[in-house]
Amino acid sequence: MVKFVVLWSTPKDPVAFERHYRDVHIPLGKQLPGLRRYAIGHHTVAIRGGEPYYWISELEWDSMDALQKAFQSPIGKATAEDVANLARYADVRSMVYEVEEV
Amino acid sequence: MVKFVVLWSTPKDPVAFERHYRDVHIPLGKQLPGLRRYAIGHHTVAIRGGEPYYWISELEWDSMDALQKAFQSPIGKATAEDVANLARYADVRSMVYEVEEV
Repeated sequence: MVKFVVLWSTPKDPVAFERHYRDVHIPLGKQLPGLRRYAIGHHTVAIRGGEPYYWISELEWDSMDALQKAFQSPIGKATAEDVANLARYADVRSMVYEVEEV
Repeated sequence: MVKFVVLWSTPKDPVAFERHYRDVHIPLGKQLPGLRRYAIGHHTVAIRGGEPYYWISELEWDSMDALQKAFQSPIGKATAEDVANLARYADVRSMVYEVEEV
């Protein structure tokens, strides 16, 4: 399983950020081909290393190949482009990785 | 569901980091009371925002109460203390949050 994680810093306008995220970004993301799971993490509390990320998006696919195909699709391109709208409110750091259950 | 996520930067000595993580830290963490899932993310590739985290640990519990009880237990204290051994190799940033499936 592979995961695409997006780490959002605290937005300048959290209400506007969340509205756009829920009204526009999730409906786009949910249409990504092959998507197995979409979850968001919020109400974060820091343990170590300073301020926590404010909002954490996790999207899962069966393989890196499936993930890449999703983002090459028209809906994938639209979802990626919409990140620019959200990035007006908050810094963003994102990465993909392989998940190993231990 | 609540998640405890630990974001590790690239270690100075990746081999020593991974050895300690697998040989000492995972066996401790797997004994945490109430733990529902333990996964690690690796072979990370950055998408946005610069260098990706090198190693991402995800631990899940049913509730914040269950997570707090786990870390108040003797094995929880030993697991938290062992983070200091790993932090000799790599910077660490960790947080807990509520997970919402969307």
